[in-house]
Amino acid sequence: MSITVVGSVAFDSIETPAGRRDRCLGGAATYFALAASFFTTVRVIAVVGEDFGRRQEAVFLARNIDIQGIEHAPGKSFFWEGSYLDNLNEAKTHNTELNVFGAFQPKIPDAYSDSEFLFLANIDPVLQRRVREAMPHARLVAGDTMNYWIKDHRPALLEVLKGLDLLLINDTEARMLAGNTNLVQAARAVLALGPRSLVVKHGEYGATLFHADTPAARGADLRAPAFPLDQVTDPTGAGDSFAGGFFGYLASQPELTPAVFRRAMFYGSVMGSFTVERFGTESLQQLTRQQIDDRFALFRELTHLD
Amino acid sequence: MSITVVGSVAFDSIETPAGRRDRCLGGAATYFALAASFFTTVRVIAVVGEDFGRRQEAVFLARNIDIQGIEHAPGKSFFWEGSYLDNLNEAKTHNTELNVFGAFQPKIPDAYSDSEFLFLANIDPVLQRRVREAMPHARLVAGDTMNYWIKDHRPALLEVLKGLDLLLINDTEARMLAGNTNLVQAARAVLALGPRSLVVKHGEYGATLFHADTPAARGADLRAPAFPLDQVTDPTGAGDSFAGGFFGYLASQPELTPAVFRRAMFYGSVMGSFTVERFGTESLQQLTRQQIDDRFALFRELTHLD
Repeated sequence: MSITVVGSVAFDSIETPAGRRDRCLGGAATYFALAASFFTTVRVIAVVGEDFGRRQEAVFLARNIDIQGIEHAPGKSFFWEGSYLDNLNEAKTHNTELNVFGAFQPKIPDAYSDSEFLFLANIDPVLQRRVREAMPHARLVAGDTMNYWIKDHRPALLEVLKGLDLLLINDTEARMLAGNTNLVQAARAVLALGPRSLVVKHGEYGATLFHADTPAARGADLRAPAFPLDQVTDPTGAGDSFAGGFFGYLASQPELTPAVFRRAMFYGSVMGSFTVERFGTESLQQLTRQQIDDRFALFRELTHLD
Repeated sequence: MSITVVGSVAFDSIETPAGRRDRCLGGAATYFALAASFFTTVRVIAVVGEDFGRRQEAVFLARNIDIQGIEHAPGKSFFWEGSYLDNLNEAKTHNTELNVFGAFQPKIPDAYSDSEFLFLANIDPVLQRRVREAMPHARLVAGDTMNYWIKDHRPALLEVLKGLDLLLINDTEARMLAGNTNLVQAARAVLALGPRSLVVKHGEYGATLFHADTPAARGADLRAPAFPLDQVTDPTGAGDSFAGGFFGYLASQPELTPAVFRRAMFYGSVMGSFTVERFGTESLQQLTRQQIDDRFALFRELTHLD
């Protein structure tokens, strides 16, 4: 099944203890699409400026990603500049230029309208909702969001949550959204807002999967640890790569059983782990499916008793 | 096989968002001994004051813990007062009174000298080393430490590490001891200081097991997630309970295979999860082995793909 993703395609300037990269290809939809492309066909809805050319297009095309939904507008692409010099777990933002993204009005190519899987990456919830309504054939809709929308655009975000099957957010966002510091209680409160399933990402410590029908005594459905890496070069895009691996694997399966969701969590962690090993999308551009499955097997060994 | 543990037996006054307890039984050796007692026989070396009476003794005796190594001295027992009002993951210390513990000179009863398993809980490394040297029959020696000894008593601590088979510390301590923020690199550096195995505890996110002979490509031997709890009442003693479950299970097994170490990690997490559900040692005092094994099974379900 093909996935349509709407979100940012951007340029990032990143500094980490391992070095610096200027204006490399980034954006949530980029990481998501590249990660998901190892599992299924992916279609992207985004807007870019005149600085996005053949070289950037080639990155998507090399992975057979459909980019007819990437609109080209006059001006410059979304730009983010940040560093992780003190703390690899938290980006320090130095500059954000919305540029063409500021007036983004998602346009959905007719060819995308049969997508049964839809991922609403972290953008204005008003736009997330509009895309969701324009994709009536989507039977599994997942989304991401961030602290800014949770704090300052709560009513619009709550409308989006009502229409989501799956929400993927991090600890801080889950706690903020629920107003509860206990993760299990926060997860239950978030699920009561609409999504049938919730993935809470814990950065270097893995992620937890909750379903609305998980028995209370069990707490969660699956807790997947992150891969312990001896080299973290650049954490940018780890969460979006997790989402791409997770949702991409779901979309590749004939049936969405609980076991499939559990394996999807592991594939999510695997894709996040590759992304942070190199700068920007460098890992995702060079990866093979064999490497992914090898790491999946190693990941199982690292977490299973026998 | 019986375990001998040396460490603090104390009184704690604890305040958390769930309430307050004054002068409840605490101390690293207490939590460790109670948790380990569900797996094997345990012997305690500690010092207490005149405030430690029959009621406190009864807690140990109810679990068949050998307390002839608990010395009674004139004065008061070690006392700690702390709160977790803002952050359940980090205690704020309000008061520490060493009392009789300030002049602690561990005395090892003759009856303990055949213990093959020795746990050196978090005390002055000079004392840890003295106990280790006085127990020549110990064939598996594990230890804990804390930031204070790492920072200000490093030479003495390094001597202890040389004689350890197993070190159990948390993320912050591992990073501080190694002077490296990457967990996998820090673990390798710590293992180079002596211990053949290292358990790094991640609080609510689980723990990672490293062996000196773990292949570099694998990063770690096992990453065990923590049990997701919808009620965390009091985190005091979670790490010591983990250590007790972990080491207690090891001591109960006829052979120390890699698979036994992996199951021990899960038992450690299980014991830590029970401790934090109630104040102080309340959970550990009322637990049954059946409850432990039921949670072990649930924990396996929560972490395994199939």
